[in-house]
Amino acid sequence: MLYSIISIKLSYIAIDIGATNIRVATGDHNGSIEKVTEPTETREGPMGVSRQIIRLIESIKEDDPTNIGIGSIGPINLEQGIITNTPNYSFQNIPIKEPLIEEYKVPVTMVNDCAAAVTGEQYFGDGNGLRNLVYVTISTGIGGGAIVDDVLLLGKEGNAVEIGHFTIAPESEIMCGCGCRGHWEAFCSGSNIPNYARHLLSGVDWSGGVLHMLAGREKDGLDAKVIFEAARKGDRYAKMIVDEIGYKNAIGFANIVNAYDPELITVGGSIALNNPDQILNPILANIEKHSINTVPEIKITPLGQDAVIIGALALAVNY
Amino acid sequence: MLYSIISIKLSYIAIDIGATNIRVATGDHNGSIEKVTEPTETREGPMGVSRQIIRLIESIKEDDPTNIGIGSIGPINLEQGIITNTPNYSFQNIPIKEPLIEEYKVPVTMVNDCAAAVTGEQYFGDGNGLRNLVYVTISTGIGGGAIVDDVLLLGKEGNAVEIGHFTIAPESEIMCGCGCRGHWEAFCSGSNIPNYARHLLSGVDWSGGVLHMLAGREKDGLDAKVIFEAARKGDRYAKMIVDEIGYKNAIGFANIVNAYDPELITVGGSIALNNPDQILNPILANIEKHSINTVPEIKITPLGQDAVIIGALALAVNY
Repeated sequence: MLYSIISIKLSYIAIDIGATNIRVATGDHNGSIEKVTEPTETREGPMGVSRQIIRLIESIKEDDPTNIGIGSIGPINLEQGIITNTPNYSFQNIPIKEPLIEEYKVPVTMVNDCAAAVTGEQYFGDGNGLRNLVYVTISTGIGGGAIVDDVLLLGKEGNAVEIGHFTIAPESEIMCGCGCRGHWEAFCSGSNIPNYARHLLSGVDWSGGVLHMLAGREKDGLDAKVIFEAARKGDRYAKMIVDEIGYKNAIGFANIVNAYDPELITVGGSIALNNPDQILNPILANIEKHSINTVPEIKITPLGQDAVIIGALALAVNY
Repeated sequence: MLYSIISIKLSYIAIDIGATNIRVATGDHNGSIEKVTEPTETREGPMGVSRQIIRLIESIKEDDPTNIGIGSIGPINLEQGIITNTPNYSFQNIPIKEPLIEEYKVPVTMVNDCAAAVTGEQYFGDGNGLRNLVYVTISTGIGGGAIVDDVLLLGKEGNAVEIGHFTIAPESEIMCGCGCRGHWEAFCSGSNIPNYARHLLSGVDWSGGVLHMLAGREKDGLDAKVIFEAARKGDRYAKMIVDEIGYKNAIGFANIVNAYDPELITVGGSIALNNPDQILNPILANIEKHSINTVPEIKITPLGQDAVIIGALALAVNY
């Protein structure tokens, strides 16, 4: 206390608006956080989401924040501070930024979830000191955030780096949730792996093995967890599916390297965090076949499941 | 002269190092230029290129420049100011920046050709006032330059936006000049269109029509000029090839929109400039099928064949 004549309490709020959950945290400039999580309130329409956030902020006894940072599922409209048309909720054009500014009268920085995560990676994670890095999430969907030449990429509406929607197989029968054919995410994200697996097993007798057993002997029982686990146990069909996913991921990552020329790519999201070797190894083994640029270091994020909320904190601290 | 007590002569040098030619110009802050062009000197090894540039600068009687801007074929190493390993010359690691700094003792800004062009587009072209724009060249190769959130993307070595090397058809037999399978450029650039056309015509009896005649009745006579001209004259095989090229271009442009979320894409390069409607129309007709982000305005650059050298001038003026 010797040097601190006036003690100013700086209090940062970090918010992670996900497809399923909303997480709110208070944090400090060292990156340590205290957080609460709740399933996103979807019964009260577009205004319910910001009301829920304000309630969660109050629940952690933080009614006087200095700055607020938000990482949100997209697509968003950055200027208006709204979530425009996410397929995850039944309503559109959800105001986030304005209700929070109105309530707290402090600066609110809102970007999409992966833009937040890559900011967190640069500020609190393995990207410290780097000017060119990309964060990739392989989760329900596939998304990315990029810092190029020390600048966070946003784009005209805040939706730059929609890497999961790179077209990598335009002739494929596989459709993306967004309605386009052959997007990367349509093959390799958590919500799409079951469909891709069923496609790969079509006309194949895969009965009798570990995959068949873990899937409850039903094609409908195929999901990412079952497939990666069966592959780890040596099931040849599961290994074939994991190989195909890895081959497609290598193409997606090569496109990232050719688009942003990063020094480092960190990878998060539940599919990658739960199956790190099975996700990373095929990428590392195959990416040079597809990339003209120098391949950077590629690794699992040290921020784990907290990448987005730590990133939201970095946005608030950095304001 | 009333207000000009001391008249300072600001003299900018702009340099466009291309696959075939080197162009050197003097210019002013309004974007008007005087230029000389010569085939690139490739007989004197790596040091011959900068010697040729200095000779060209002297030939336009400019031995006291204020700033020098360079747009160069890539890949380059930005930090070292060299062209690293272009397939167009028989030698590698060509020093450009240092010899010019040594000769003129002035700041030299060197970026790749399309990074220069997009800078020119923002400064002197249709991107004036915009913060998010992309320039695409469809020429011997396919390349891009991007300004996102008002920042020119460079990347760790200056090779961000290598969009021609997006993998868009990984199962295809078609190989890119860089050795990778199914890159966009492998189908749609000037040097690769002949190979793609022969592939599309394989097993097809295309004899007797305009395309056959213009190609001198030989598959070896197929090139971009012949194909686009025959399509304009109604040849069905040429139209089929142009359609396929257009379909692939739409995928490449959608990947750009998903990667950078621009407000405007301008298109240059000889293939696009010589066949503007045949290149643009299929992109405009098909891009929404592949893009999740809002499709921006897409148009031919008003800077024409001067896009890179005007961009090099913008770099020099902006230094």
